[in-house]
Parts: sequence; C-alpha cells; structure tokens
Amino acid sequence: MADYNAPLKDMKLTLNHVARMPELAEKPGFEDASADMVDAILEEAARVARDVVAPTNWEGDQQGVQLKDGKVACPDSFKQAYQQYVEGGWGSLQFDPEYGGQGLPFLLSIPVMEMWHSANMAWGLCPMLSQGAVECLDLNGSDELKAKYLPKLVSGEWCGTMNLTESNAGSDLSVVRAKAEPEGDHYRVSGEKIFITWGDHEMAENIVHLVLARLPDAPAGVRGISLFLVPKYLVNDDGSLGERNTAGALSLEHKLGIHASPTCVMGFDNAIGYLVGEPNRGLACMFTMMNNARLSVGLQGVSISERAYQQALEYAFERIQGPAVGTREAGPIIRHADVRRMLLTMKTLTEAGRGIAYDACGSLDFALKATSAEEKAAEQARAALLTPIVKGWCTEVAQEVTSLGVQVYGGMGYIEETGAAQHFRDARILPIYEGTNGIQALDLVGRKTLMDQGAALAALIEEIRGAIASCDPSLIAQAKQLEEGVVGLTKARDFLLSGAEADAQLPGAIAYNFMMLAGYVCGGWQLLRQATAAVHLAAEGDDDPYLQAKQESARFYMAQVLPRWKGFADMLNDGSRSIMALPEELFASAWQ
Amino acid sequence: MADYNAPLKDMKLTLNHVARMPELAEKPGFEDASADMVDAILEEAARVARDVVAPTNWEGDQQGVQLKDGKVACPDSFKQAYQQYVEGGWGSLQFDPEYGGQGLPFLLSIPVMEMWHSANMAWGLCPMLSQGAVECLDLNGSDELKAKYLPKLVSGEWCGTMNLTESNAGSDLSVVRAKAEPEGDHYRVSGEKIFITWGDHEMAENIVHLVLARLPDAPAGVRGISLFLVPKYLVNDDGSLGERNTAGALSLEHKLGIHASPTCVMGFDNAIGYLVGEPNRGLACMFTMMNNARLSVGLQGVSISERAYQQALEYAFERIQGPAVGTREAGPIIRHADVRRMLLTMKTLTEAGRGIAYDACGSLDFALKATSAEEKAAEQARAALLTPIVKGWCTEVAQEVTSLGVQVYGGMGYIEETGAAQHFRDARILPIYEGTNGIQALDLVGRKTLMDQGAALAALIEEIRGAIASCDPSLIAQAKQLEEGVVGLTKARDFLLSGAEADAQLPGAIAYNFMMLAGYVCGGWQLLRQATAAVHLAAEGDDDPYLQAKQESARFYMAQVLPRWKGFADMLNDGSRSIMALPEELFASAWQ
Repeated sequence: MADYNAPLKDMKLTLNHVARMPELAEKPGFEDASADMVDAILEEAARVARDVVAPTNWEGDQQGVQLKDGKVACPDSFKQAYQQYVEGGWGSLQFDPEYGGQGLPFLLSIPVMEMWHSANMAWGLCPMLSQGAVECLDLNGSDELKAKYLPKLVSGEWCGTMNLTESNAGSDLSVVRAKAEPEGDHYRVSGEKIFITWGDHEMAENIVHLVLARLPDAPAGVRGISLFLVPKYLVNDDGSLGERNTAGALSLEHKLGIHASPTCVMGFDNAIGYLVGEPNRGLACMFTMMNNARLSVGLQGVSISERAYQQALEYAFERIQGPAVGTREAGPIIRHADVRRMLLTMKTLTEAGRGIAYDACGSLDFALKATSAEEKAAEQARAALLTPIVKGWCTEVAQEVTSLGVQVYGGMGYIEETGAAQHFRDARILPIYEGTNGIQALDLVGRKTLMDQGAALAALIEEIRGAIASCDPSLIAQAKQLEEGVVGLTKARDFLLSGAEADAQLPGAIAYNFMMLAGYVCGGWQLLRQATAAVHLAAEGDDDPYLQAKQESARFYMAQVLPRWKGFADMLNDGSRSIMALPEELFASAWQ
Repeated sequence: MADYNAPLKDMKLTLNHVARMPELAEKPGFEDASADMVDAILEEAARVARDVVAPTNWEGDQQGVQLKDGKVACPDSFKQAYQQYVEGGWGSLQFDPEYGGQGLPFLLSIPVMEMWHSANMAWGLCPMLSQGAVECLDLNGSDELKAKYLPKLVSGEWCGTMNLTESNAGSDLSVVRAKAEPEGDHYRVSGEKIFITWGDHEMAENIVHLVLARLPDAPAGVRGISLFLVPKYLVNDDGSLGERNTAGALSLEHKLGIHASPTCVMGFDNAIGYLVGEPNRGLACMFTMMNNARLSVGLQGVSISERAYQQALEYAFERIQGPAVGTREAGPIIRHADVRRMLLTMKTLTEAGRGIAYDACGSLDFALKATSAEEKAAEQARAALLTPIVKGWCTEVAQEVTSLGVQVYGGMGYIEETGAAQHFRDARILPIYEGTNGIQALDLVGRKTLMDQGAALAALIEEIRGAIASCDPSLIAQAKQLEEGVVGLTKARDFLLSGAEADAQLPGAIAYNFMMLAGYVCGGWQLLRQATAAVHLAAEGDDDPYLQAKQESARFYMAQVLPRWKGFADMLNDGSRSIMALPEELFASAWQ
C-alpha cells in the first residue's frame, strides 16, 4: 500500500497565494495564525496523517464495521487514531475559545481536514460530522445547550451526527415523519432515520445526535420541521454521563465503499431530546451546517483524488513494462505518454479542486471578519456561489481521478489488494451525499444565480478576468485559453438569465452542464493564479523545483483538461428541448 | 433486483438497418439466416437470458467463487444456466458445421452475446473465452487437434481459456517466461500465468487451455513465443477423458467486481501440451483470437450499459420524491429534467455503442464472404479500424453509464443490495482487460491509421459523410451537428498524419483523445443511420412508438452528448507538448 504524504508545498502555496491566508492573519482575533504557526500546524498534521491515520485505511476497508449486541464495532486501529486526534486538539482548531476552541481561521482547518480524508476518508467522516454538529449548535443552540454540549464536542471527546434522511425523505426533506412530543423541559423523539454516517460507535464516550422531527400540530412541509439534540447518553447537570437514551443503530448498510464508516439505520424510540433553535425552523438550522458540510464533501473529493494520485504515481515508477518511445529498454510505465497523460490529468484536477475549495472556504472567514456590510455580503455571496461548484465539480472529477488511478495500475488495479480500487469505491459516495450533484447543480443555477439575477456570478467572472489580466506574462498563452472559457461561462450565464422565464424546464435541464462548465473554468482560474504565484516566488529567488511543476500544471490543464468546457457549453445551449422531448412511456419502448 | 429484458426492437433495427444483416443472409452459406430465423433465435435467446441467466447475476456476485481442495466452486445456479446454454446450442451459432457449428453469421451471435453479458457478465465470460479458443484453434490448429478438440468446444461441453499474462508480462508480452520442452509427440509446459478468466471451474467436464510459452532456444522477444493447447484432462484417442493434467488454479484473485468469474493464477507444472500453429508464431495465433475478443469486450460495455439503464429506469419510475417543475405533487423522479438527462445519456450512449459494435462485427462476415480481393480487404480494414473504437469507446462510456446508474438511485445506489453498484464494479474491468484502452488507442493511431497512411479512416469518414448525405430530411439539423464532428475527426486525422514523423511522442500523446473523438463521431453516425431507418419504417406504416423514441435518441445524442468531441479535438491539437514537459522527478515535488 502506498504511503500518504501531505502535499504541503501545494497546500501552502494555495493557502498563502490564492486563499489569502496572510491577509486573514492580520484580522483581529486571527493573530495566532502567523505564517510560522500555520507551517507548524500543517507539518504536525501531516505527520499524524501519514504515521497514525493513513496506515488504518486499508485495514479499515478490509475489516469493515459490525453491529453486535447493539454496539457498532469499528476497526481496531480507528479508536487509537481517534484518541490521538482528540489529544492533539485537531478537532478544535477553528472553534470558539469560549468552548475550548483555538479560534483559528476556518481556512486553516481545511488543509488539515484534507489530510485526514486523504489518509482515511471513512475515518475522517467521524470528525467531519462532529464539526458540523458543533457549527450547528454554536449558531442555533441555547446558551444552556451550548454550555453543556459544546466543550466536549469541540474537544472531540464526544461526537456529533446529522439525522435528516428517512426512507421516503431524501432530496425532498419536506416529507420527514419523525415526531417529537413535548414533556417537561424536553421532548420525546420517535422515528427512524437512514443513511446516518457514524450514527453509532464506541470511539467516543458520548454521541450527540441532531435530529429533524415534527412537533405535534406542526404544519406540513418544510415549515413544520424542528431540530432536536438527542444525546446517546443523557448528560447530568454536572456534565457527567447519565442513562443510556433510547436512540441507537438498528442496522448497518452494506455499501460499495467507505466500508469502515458505519452507515446506520437509526431508531429513536421515545428518546429524550432538546429543541435546537425555534420550533418549525429546523431545516434552516440544518442548512447553516449543511453548507459547510458541502464544502467538506467537495474537499473530500480533493483528498481522495490526491491519495489516488500518489498511489498511482508510486506504481507508475515501480511497474516496468515495454520500452517507451525514444527508449530501447523496458522501463517504468511513467515514461509512456498515455500514462503521463493520465497522471497529469489526476494531478492537475486535484490541484485545481484544491484551489477552488480553499478559496471558497477562505471567503467564510473574510465574511466573518468583514468590516463593512458590503464586504460581508460580497464574501458570503462568493462562498455561497462557489459551494455547489466545490461540492459538485470536485466530487465529479474525483470519480475520474480515482478511476484513472485504477487504470494506471492496469489489471492490478482491479485486484482489491493493491488498494487502488478502494479509492474508486470510496469516492463514489461523494456525488451522492450532502445533496446529490444534481441538487448542487440546481442550487447553482437557481438559488445562487437566478435568485440574484446573476450578480454573484458576474462578480466571480470579473474576478477571473482580473486574474487573467494580472497573470505573469510567461503564462499569457494559458490566460488566453482560460479567457475563452470565461467567455463561454459568461454566455452560459446570459443564456440562463434570459431563458429561464420563458422555459421553466430550462434551469433544471442545463444545471449539470452549467455546473461542470463553471467548475472547469474555475479550475483554470485557480491554476493560473497558482502558476503566477509560482513564477513570482521563483523570481524572488526560491529555487524549489516544485514551482516549475506548478507552472507546468497550468500549461497542462489549459491545454489538456480545460477544453472540455466547450462540450458543456454546447450541450447547455441546447436548452431543455431534447431532454424533455421523449414521452415517459417511451423510455422502455425497445423492449416493451 | 430489476429484470432484464433484451431490447429486441433496437437489436433488430440495428442488425437489419445498420449492420446489413439482410444483405448478409443472401450470401452463399448464410441462407439459414432468414429474417424469420433471426427473429426466432433472438426471441428464444431473450427468453433464456431473462428467465435463466439474469436471475443468477446478483446471487453470483454475493456468493463469489472459492478455491477448495483444488477445485473452483462457482455459484450454485451457474452450472445449471450453463447446461441450458449448452443444450440450447447457444455456443455454436457461428461456427463451422464440420465441427458441429450452425454456420450462421458471426453477426447473428453478437446480439445473442450481448444478451448473455447483460444478463450476467461474470457468467458470460466463460462462453466468451471458449468461443475465442474455438476461433484460435480453428484458424491455427492442426487437423488432428481440431478433430479432437473442436466438436466439444463448439458444443460447449468443454470450455476454453486464454493464458497470456504473467506477472511481469502484461501489456508487453515479449517477456513471457513460461517454457515448453518437446517430449515425443507433445510438449511439457511449465510456468505461471495470472489473470486467467475462468481458468478453472466445474461447469464443464474439460477445459482446454491455450498457453503462450517459449520453446528451448527460442529467440528473445515476441518472435520466440509459441502457442500450446494444454487440456485440463488429457483426451484419449477415442475422445474419452483420461488423466488429470498438471495444470490448474493455484489461487483466485479478490477483485473489485465480476466476483462470480474466477480469475485464476494458473500453474503449469510439466503439463502435457500440444503445439498450435508454427513454433515461435504463438503471438500471431493469439492475435487472431484477440481481435474478436476485443470486439466482445466492447460489446460487454454495451451489455452492461443496457442492464444499468434498465435498472435505473425502473427505479426512476418507482422512486417518488419532490414535485418536479410544472407539477404540484411529489411524483416519480423521472419527471425531473436532470434525471431525464442522466437516463437519456445512458440510453443513447448504449444505443450508439450497439450500433458501432454490431456494424464492426458485420464487416467480419462480409470479409469472409467477399467476392473480390478489394471487397475483402475493405471489409477487413473497416473491422480492424473499428475494433479499437468498439473496445475502447464502448467500455469508456460504460463507466459513465454504470456510474449514472448509481447516481439515479441516489443514496440507494451506494447500497449493494440494490444492485446498481454491482454493474458499476463489474464494468470497471472493461477498460483494462483484452488490452487496456491506452493500448487500444495506440492501436487506433498506430497500426490502424499511421500504418496505412490513414486510408481506412478516410474510407470511414467517407462512409459517415455518405450517411449524412442520405439521412432523412427530418434529421437535417442532427446531420449538421454530426458533420461538424466529422470535420473535427478529419482534421485530427490530418494532424496525426502530418505530425507523427517530426514528433515521435505525438501518436502516443494524442491517442486517447483521438480514440474518444472517433468514438463520439461514430456514435453519432450510428444513431443518425438508426434514426433514418426509423423514419423510413414509420413512413412505411409501422406505428411502433419505438420508432419515435429512436428518432429522439438521435436528437438527444447530437445535442447533449456529441458536443464533447470539441474538447477531445482541442486537447489533441495540443500534441505532446504539455504531456511530455514535466520532468519525471517533479511529479511528486509537492511533497518531496
């Protein structure tokens, strides 16, 4: 099994020269995020990811998880890795010092999270869900709930879960049926939830479930759903653990991948719970958390792409086969042009995704620290617009990258022991959970573009044009290639804005192509900025050959990846016509 | 689990109006392939595929295969299905009546094979490999070997295998190390082979291994490899089975998919074998068989795409979620534009692939029955050119189609019980075996285009232009979209021919993009022809609504799939520059 080494140079360049980390470190409250501190944190995280977490990935996939005597047993090595994570304070980086957090920028937690997911995505889901629960509770919980639950969640001693989906309520949560009855100072929550990631386990001493349910007499639909905190073990007033609550895993799913992440059917049987936020406003509470979770899932796409790339690269150097063009002896397969094409596609898609993901997350910090309402609104709109691109595009390309990882291995890639197939299986969940990519695409064209008449997208396009205008002169050819894509994206935006009113099907029909077009262009934007930074750093005397590789990434991407935008632009221009034309009853007409 | 129903209408339209079946039925020797007979065969095969084979697919995946006490145990239902296959004479359709075959066109066996692979790809590999062995032996074996082995192989009572790959000899077979020593009228074969599909099992009473090995003092490289027939059980002169030969499975691989197909490490320990063909000409013998096997693997791509489509379609009608645009109530998800986009992408890619695959296979029959040397050469060149496109493109798009199949299911697609994930796992082998798609792409640009100075490709382009010129007037807009793609393909051909001499890396660097470009254009060509046929049939009074669906397929494909050619054309025009630029030692520079 290939090791995992955090791509620290790329992470730092992206943080510092794309995602505006140094600027952020000057904001009041972020003084601790000095360049030295950032480096030290990343280097220590890289060590833990490599030495502690990464070695558990393959073993976890093989062992999987079992539900035995009402307890979820996860792989032996997981609990130990999780304890080191808690002891290192890795879960608390970006959280409020009032509850034991370190008060560092959210942005700084992003490369750290990237490392956990590269090291072991199934394992990384547990802290990821907990962080979502912290965000949700911090924003929506009463002071009492926060005081009681947040410190242990922030430290990671307790874990958190999100309980939204029911068997008939997936993409459409309006039909959630779980119920909550008031009883004294709390509620009694009953119902069944499915697809609950890390819904139960023994890695932490308590688990805090956030559960969507309906109050008696709540209105139908999304305006009748409330959010409840349901602890696995009740918590006494002194903070000690009390009785076991009637909430737990009923069964585990048998999945294509992330075998070591227990996906639970959860049963709540008159369980004691506490209202979070206002009654009937549960979906809004969840959505604050879900936006960050979507960024995290996009980041998982980057993570698993990076891992697949590193693994394929190792094999491409090891595997000797046939003489390549221009050589007479058999040599490593990396010498073959088509293998280089595959590896460079993997590499540059990963770097492009890293850029978009970090940059979007940075905007959330800038919004938080904004000194004017305009600045706040602009950064929020920027993050909101980029979120479905990060989630949708980074996870779509993760499918290609992990599949190429299998392909580089040839026949050995199909054999589970090599581990290339695990990344491919694990990655396949990413376009599905936290809102399918179809939902992301609808979000991008609907809430994020039509709703503001394309204003946020216009600002983004302006920003990309700015990057083109200010790119290093040595990258002018690449900037021109990107410029074409920007023109395509601008036309797509106009097409959407001008056509949506006359054709109600248009937004849904073009959504996926729109998202992919935007993603490829944003990827080019990021790589152009990264390459420009690399040229500048080299000019300032930094002779790290990584800086040369970074420039080549931009050249490869613009020539060998970005041109795909043309297909998406063309397909989009077809509108809804050929998508809506075939009557439903004729889809099966070849055999009926 | 969704049923499988052979798409008989599409198969027949493709056979009769694209792949020239009626013309073939007029050739001497093919008189039995009358329209009635073709229909009867397809309908009976559809019944067996649906009722006998398809129900074994999911069970086989779950049970998998085990090596116990030297025997390979496959799923319980497989042997029974295989017996019905043998009893129905399904393995002998296209073979020489002299050896018990039915003498029907190879083309007719193609939709039948498509059905087996749709029904159960893991199971279908067993007869597929046997047919390859029959072809190889028929073309290269001595009369004695043929008389002794062919009848039982043709009937399916015995099975055949291909033993090429060794641990260090995969894409590059020149370094094969297995040895064969002469001993009396036979040889003693020793060595280890890997990745041997259905290398051992108990479904048939004997297995005939075709094995590449080196004679003593054979020259190094590909010109020193000979082909041997090594039976599992020795065969007495009266045809009865004798002793067990020292050839068998040493272990089975644990694979991502096709769990029910035993992939064996085979040990040959001084096993008795017989030379097939000339000494040191083994690779050439194998290649005759490998070409057909490549067509078969491409066809498997069509098969698994069809199965994934049928399954996703069933779910899209069943699954109720949210109100679609223009409706007020929750309804089946097929009403959502993005789900329709996914389903139609699956449907049209499958139909396009079916067209290319059938059409290519038909050329082999026309070459066989050619009445002039020119006709023979033209049909052979056409089949040879289309083979890497069938293998490469149909299996690449099968990745997308089976992945969309998972996506349509949403969260349920990631749960193994629904079966959508099985198709996705099974399909992943297709771009790898029988020559990776990288090898296919090299074959297309090298042997199939550069070697004849682009003559075969020019003829194909001419043929596509002919289809455009003669399309039904109602499809003129689609023909124009295709025409653009043809211009792109023509430019790509010129670019390759003019640039390969000056840049030795060019063919390898552009090969994959070239193959994909050619594939998308050929897919459009096929759908345009199919749609034209549908218009004509409707005009002649056939009121089957399938004919309307076929026309919509062409409209959807040209607008929503074909435009991808532009990306491939652009990437290809970059040549080898950005692919070859990054020094090998900088691929890992972000963490080194």
